Amino acid sequence: MHDETEKMREEADRMITGIIGKVLPGSAVRKALANYEKDRPVRVIALGKAACEMAAAARETLAENISRGLIITKYGHSKGATEGFETVEAGHPVPDENSVLGARKAMELVKEAGAGERILLLISGGGSSLMEMPEAGLTLTDIQMVTKKLLSCGASIQEINKIRKRLSAVKGGKLATLCPQAEIHQIVLSDIIDDDLEQIASGPACEDTTTNEAVREILRKYRISFSPSVMEKLFSETPKHINNVTSEIVGSVRELCRHAADFAGKSGYRPFILSTGLDCEAKEAGKLIASAARTICESSEGCALHTLKRPCALIWGGETVVTVRGRGIGGRNQEMALSAALGIAGMEKVVFFSFGSDGTDGPTDAAGGMVDGYTVSRIREKGLSPERLLEENDSYHALACAGDLIVTGPTGTNVNDVAVLLCR
Amino acid sequence: MHDETEKMREEADRMITGIIGKVLPGSAVRKALANYEKDRPVRVIALGKAACEMAAAARETLAENISRGLIITKYGHSKGATEGFETVEAGHPVPDENSVLGARKAMELVKEAGAGERILLLISGGGSSLMEMPEAGLTLTDIQMVTKKLLSCGASIQEINKIRKRLSAVKGGKLATLCPQAEIHQIVLSDIIDDDLEQIASGPACEDTTTNEAVREILRKYRISFSPSVMEKLFSETPKHINNVTSEIVGSVRELCRHAADFAGKSGYRPFILSTGLDCEAKEAGKLIASAARTICESSEGCALHTLKRPCALIWGGETVVTVRGRGIGGRNQEMALSAALGIAGMEKVVFFSFGSDGTDGPTDAAGGMVDGYTVSRIREKGLSPERLLEENDSYHALACAGDLIVTGPTGTNVNDVAVLLCR
Repeated sequence: MHDETEKMREEADRMITGIIGKVLPGSAVRKALANYEKDRPVRVIALGKAACEMAAAARETLAENISRGLIITKYGHSKGATEGFETVEAGHPVPDENSVLGARKAMELVKEAGAGERILLLISGGGSSLMEMPEAGLTLTDIQMVTKKLLSCGASIQEINKIRKRLSAVKGGKLATLCPQAEIHQIVLSDIIDDDLEQIASGPACEDTTTNEAVREILRKYRISFSPSVMEKLFSETPKHINNVTSEIVGSVRELCRHAADFAGKSGYRPFILSTGLDCEAKEAGKLIASAARTICESSEGCALHTLKRPCALIWGGETVVTVRGRGIGGRNQEMALSAALGIAGMEKVVFFSFGSDGTDGPTDAAGGMVDGYTVSRIREKGLSPERLLEENDSYHALACAGDLIVTGPTGTNVNDVAVLLCR
Repeated sequence: MHDETEKMREEADRMITGIIGKVLPGSAVRKALANYEKDRPVRVIALGKAACEMAAAARETLAENISRGLIITKYGHSKGATEGFETVEAGHPVPDENSVLGARKAMELVKEAGAGERILLLISGGGSSLMEMPEAGLTLTDIQMVTKKLLSCGASIQEINKIRKRLSAVKGGKLATLCPQAEIHQIVLSDIIDDDLEQIASGPACEDTTTNEAVREILRKYRISFSPSVMEKLFSETPKHINNVTSEIVGSVRELCRHAADFAGKSGYRPFILSTGLDCEAKEAGKLIASAARTICESSEGCALHTLKRPCALIWGGETVVTVRGRGIGGRNQEMALSAALGIAGMEKVVFFSFGSDGTDGPTDAAGGMVDGYTVSRIREKGLSPERLLEENDSYHALACAGDLIVTGPTGTNVNDVAVLLCR
């Protein structure tokens, strides 16, 4: 590998560590609780991939005033016990039995709250799957089937949540309706592109504005349907007026992008945030990003007036989707990186990386991928075809054999993905 | 519609007219012929969608020195006779009987050329389809089937050309091998993203570097195969050493983007050329572009440091692809515009347009589409679903009912597509 590219990869490694450090949930919660009345008892539910860190920060601030605490998080995400909290680990991205257990405990916790009692919800991404109680007449298997079907047909997370809310006894504001006399305050670490409260963790304390027509449109779009019992619930209305909840958003993909820009700037790249709401197909985003890299790198060889000048960093935040057609293993960040690698093959001084701020990308142990102009030849040297691996949605194995996976382990935060193209 | 948006659309209309005016082929050919020896006879073949304009400019410069002239262009693209030239109009994007007639005449014209005689080739896009002679043992139907199959499976134009060259008696340098004693000079108006001479009009006078392995990879990628006679030819080698040809490229997508940037700048937008080599799926490019629009427009409402500032124009050149799944009518520019319209629905002061510089987009009479934040509601007002029309690849009807088609008629040039996002 070219020395300069190698140096850029080391820079990128430091950027990734730095960016994650800036979006950890603890400090965000501490900041949000600064003005929260501390000397009255409060029941706390922390839900999502960042639940432990958020709960720990709440415990630090509210101490013994937490009368009952519940953490519902993903397997492997609770690092030991948190004082004052009971912990349930559950399934993601497909809900499992423990998701139902967590939901039952959460429902008990809020039902017990009397008039004027306080409930604090600490919500982070992943909550849609981690806490789940099927509506009467449905089973967990129904919900798992629906989730798997939607995940594999390329539906966006927004669309999946719109559907799942209808099938759930806790989503779409239904948790909040269990304690109409209590005062709920929610602090939300957003993993949803537009910080839409009803989307984050499928809005357990937020009214659902989804209409029956919108549900119908999603079914039509992906040409799917479900069993009669699921279909019946799909067209049952969810709560539209909830008035015992106040909300505060404390993290978002915008902050993630801003930190990426700051770190890129400190490394001498001119940063441009091009989108904080990426929502297209991962493979196609990779192609488009590679075409931008080619244009930027050609342009300094003469012909450019209005193209972006090197050294520069192009930044996209958001959450792409993968329409699964093959049988490989990967995630949206890895797939985008592999696709981009094909488009920048042979180029010098170009590095692209994309990762999930939560440290996981699809059903893999990687957070994403980091590729350069030599990635494709590294894969071919192993006797593999990067094109075919991409076709097979097998970005994990392609990047693994090139040494191009980003592995951070669970980070404890979840404010979406960020993709960065570095050109020197 | 918001007044400001209406004004932006009028600006955009003027930009489109201006951009096309700058990339017309006549002046490019005149410039290229400035140093061409004028007092010796020369045989001229003008091939492609811009053939008439290029031939007329050659006639103007070389006058009676043109000993024999042949124009091969698309139906409707020859506006009356060009003195000194015989004209054949033929099929595009699928070759027809007239493509074979044109090829026969071109082969005669070059075969007649003796030692030291000069041949001038004026090449523009579309030539791959407009001039075609099946290799011995194949029929035009074989080639039509192959072309249709490749077009509908989402293969890129580069991939299509790699395949078609193998089946042709004139592509991939084979025309040039018919007159090894003559001196060929080609002036090429490029419609290929990276100005690769062997790609433009499938390189009738350019050696073919495609390997059998590359052909095999394309077949694997799209999981397609053809009849035994086609398969046999697919793996027959094409000429690798051609030394009677000199070449000059006179137009390209880079110029197209540069002119778009210039016009945008004159209208008060800060222009950024983000790519001159767009090659991803049209619908996904539209989504990504819309997400950029949302980020730009949110950003001036407070939170942005490194995002692009309004008023700005983001410019992408190149050629997206459409994987046809539905039964509608459209083109890649129209599909990208419709997809972007869904992503910018409801936004003020955002206009996006994309068009083919040749004035045609897919099998429609439109050059592309121009959309704004009201496009989606205009379509819905007509009782149609823009989402469903997009799913059906029916961008033409969606944009038509919104009054959002760009219709220029054939422009006489062909230097690829340009897409422009305007944010005020």
